[in-house]
Amino acid sequence: MAKAPVLTPQADDFPRWYQDLINKAELADNGPVRGTMVIRPYGYGLWERMQQGMDARIKQAGAQNAYFPLFIPQSYLTREAEHVEGFAPELAVVTHAGGKELEEPVVVRPTSETIINEYFSKWVQSYRDLPLLINQWANVVRWEMRPRLFLRTSEFLWQEGHTAHATQEDARDYAARIHREVYEGFMTDVLAMDVVPGRKTAKERFAGAINTLTLEGMMGDGKALQLGTSHELGQNFAKAFHTQYLSADGEQEYVWQTSWGSTTRMIGALVMMHGDDNGLRVPPRLAHVQVVVLAIKGDDEVVAKVREVGERLKAVGLRVVVDDRTDTPFGRRAIDWELKGVPARVEIGPRDLEAGTAMLARRIPGGKEPVALDALAELLPKLLEEDQAQLLRESHERRVSRTVDVATVGEAAEAAATGWARIPWADLGVAGEAKLAEQGVTVRCL
Amino acid sequence: MAKAPVLTPQADDFPRWYQDLINKAELADNGPVRGTMVIRPYGYGLWERMQQGMDARIKQAGAQNAYFPLFIPQSYLTREAEHVEGFAPELAVVTHAGGKELEEPVVVRPTSETIINEYFSKWVQSYRDLPLLINQWANVVRWEMRPRLFLRTSEFLWQEGHTAHATQEDARDYAARIHREVYEGFMTDVLAMDVVPGRKTAKERFAGAINTLTLEGMMGDGKALQLGTSHELGQNFAKAFHTQYLSADGEQEYVWQTSWGSTTRMIGALVMMHGDDNGLRVPPRLAHVQVVVLAIKGDDEVVAKVREVGERLKAVGLRVVVDDRTDTPFGRRAIDWELKGVPARVEIGPRDLEAGTAMLARRIPGGKEPVALDALAELLPKLLEEDQAQLLRESHERRVSRTVDVATVGEAAEAAATGWARIPWADLGVAGEAKLAEQGVTVRCL
Ligand SMILES: [Zn+2]
Ligand SMILES: [Zn+2]
Repeated sequence: MAKAPVLTPQADDFPRWYQDLINKAELADNGPVRGTMVIRPYGYGLWERMQQGMDARIKQAGAQNAYFPLFIPQSYLTREAEHVEGFAPELAVVTHAGGKELEEPVVVRPTSETIINEYFSKWVQSYRDLPLLINQWANVVRWEMRPRLFLRTSEFLWQEGHTAHATQEDARDYAARIHREVYEGFMTDVLAMDVVPGRKTAKERFAGAINTLTLEGMMGDGKALQLGTSHELGQNFAKAFHTQYLSADGEQEYVWQTSWGSTTRMIGALVMMHGDDNGLRVPPRLAHVQVVVLAIKGDDEVVAKVREVGERLKAVGLRVVVDDRTDTPFGRRAIDWELKGVPARVEIGPRDLEAGTAMLARRIPGGKEPVALDALAELLPKLLEEDQAQLLRESHERRVSRTVDVATVGEAAEAAATGWARIPWADLGVAGEAKLAEQGVTVRCL
Repeated sequence: MAKAPVLTPQADDFPRWYQDLINKAELADNGPVRGTMVIRPYGYGLWERMQQGMDARIKQAGAQNAYFPLFIPQSYLTREAEHVEGFAPELAVVTHAGGKELEEPVVVRPTSETIINEYFSKWVQSYRDLPLLINQWANVVRWEMRPRLFLRTSEFLWQEGHTAHATQEDARDYAARIHREVYEGFMTDVLAMDVVPGRKTAKERFAGAINTLTLEGMMGDGKALQLGTSHELGQNFAKAFHTQYLSADGEQEYVWQTSWGSTTRMIGALVMMHGDDNGLRVPPRLAHVQVVVLAIKGDDEVVAKVREVGERLKAVGLRVVVDDRTDTPFGRRAIDWELKGVPARVEIGPRDLEAGTAMLARRIPGGKEPVALDALAELLPKLLEEDQAQLLRESHERRVSRTVDVATVGEAAEAAATGWARIPWADLGVAGEAKLAEQGVTVRCL
């Protein structure tokens, strides 16, 4: 029996499939103000798990969290010339507050390099104060002309790290450490994403940086998405904000700085990386719901059993939801959990009670089979680790099979239509980059 | 030997003592834009622990986290008449974005009732969708004419809960449950604050609410501070935003709603509740640093020992910092940890190594005595629980000793100069409330 698909198939229209999924899996809605977004509880649950996992890694790398104001005096932005040029077209500006016109308009932070440097210049006095390693979790605003939920939104959530070091080498090492241990580590181990680390070209660099490290992932349509960047800022902001320290030799020196960020875009990447025509597939290590235990019907015995099984699975450390909303048809609930990409569904009905079994539906490999209720608590953690590995393997295989080595700009443009092209920078160069840009192809990563 | 005090003594000038402490304990700095605040790592660490503790209680009460946009169309605010009247003087308005003047200015959220109701009206269709229990952790902006760090800031961090229920009774019960289990429970059990629950008068109520529950704590100067409020919104926002559901009987009904919030003001309350002339005293259950292990001198052996002791104390679940920054004088570091209110300091120097002891300084009861190094891991968790109980006891005793029963408006005003006055509402009434307001006295709590 052929059913009308719940989502537009990926092969028909990938962007529409993406939009359908975000909507039907209840991840997010468009906000009322252009480009803003409402992150719904299921989508926010993914973000909370990302925050927890990343935050632990950030603290492991020695940084501490703090919070800097949303509002930045407009004059701060202009102190670093490249920075203001890069961000000026995207700024949101508050001109009135407290019932009056402000003397100096304030900008809603697009990023916090400037305001953080203002304070670093007060807090850093001596070499003993270095390195200063700060991170903040916050919302930022960059006005977006072509918004897409999670991928490009006028307001997004992120973490931004900002550090000051005594030497360029220290700063370089720390940016690389964050890139490897926090971003690459988390995306590989938890998000099951095969990502490629590299550097950005001068054209694609962060406004104000001397070097930008990036991670690029290949999405289901063969396109690249940037996931987490780490910048070496050199002494650009230090000079603009007079962030200096007294060295052990008694000299006043400018600090060397880094900044690094990752955003709610990771949720969009998760969708495009692991989603299929039936919905999202959430890597089990990330999932805030790893297992859903469903009552097929509303019998008292069935409901009691799903609750009991739910408790037993929670007791072995699994993240479990019990779905006993039997006033909603079972089929609709099953499709809903499939759309949401919960890795394991344990379905229990009256017949299962007698047999002491449940149907186990696995979202990642697909398929459904009966399993003894008593075996679930031991079996599920192993199956979930298998599922985690499968997603990473699929991600890797896609990238390898859809990346081709090319020698000319023409070949690169052709390959970029369905995947990635790898070309020596010596053969491309700035001129080749400009030529590719005309055809809508970006040099992602050196 | 008399030392110059590090802080202005409380008895000399309580507000100045507060400001000194916030600054010298490195909790926060003033931001560059009027009334904004930079929360420094030590202050933010307190907030993170508050977030974790409250968030667990909020989830225990069945609410889920989500995220709604920072920017609200100005027209939303005006739909509920009392609400806009209450917030209009405090709004910050974005008039320009993306390099253009906006067609409709957008408001930076002062609270999210309006925008959340816009979405509730889409998400709620049937009685099966109720109750809908949502919380968000976010920044909000209310322009502040007389800012004070943590207590009144133009931007602050908070959680705001928003719920929709089928009946008024459900809504009322849920507001009361949050108030008791989340706010009163957390403040009593973790913050060691003796708080008084009650209701606000019509005059002091939230703009748009039909009933506001409050918790009031008595600070070190005998004044009251509002800590967490829960509002019954009735059907005011439901009618303004057409938030209706189809009842089991097939009728379209308006939902009944609640909202409830608590903010970074809790950090200010913590300071004013438990601080003394030597600095902050952090309740051990809250403290992100419960124990600091200090090397008195930079000997290799001493440094090795403090690290070893630190690891042993972490292994029993304590939150520990090892301070081996021996290029900074010991006395300065000790005063710094005292200012920051870390409950226990374990100080180890060369002489202690021979004796197998350390000096244990306890911030809450005060005093210092030698303790065998081997006894610390067993002893400290017990002492910290004693300290926690002591802070709550002191908080309770202050309130009881400084609250007097009065019969007239005149007596109430007099008592309010040094503490709290309790007067039957029948003896006060709206006229009495207005009279007290002329003398700067507020009716905090019914
Ligand atoms: Zn004007
Ligand atoms: Zn204009």
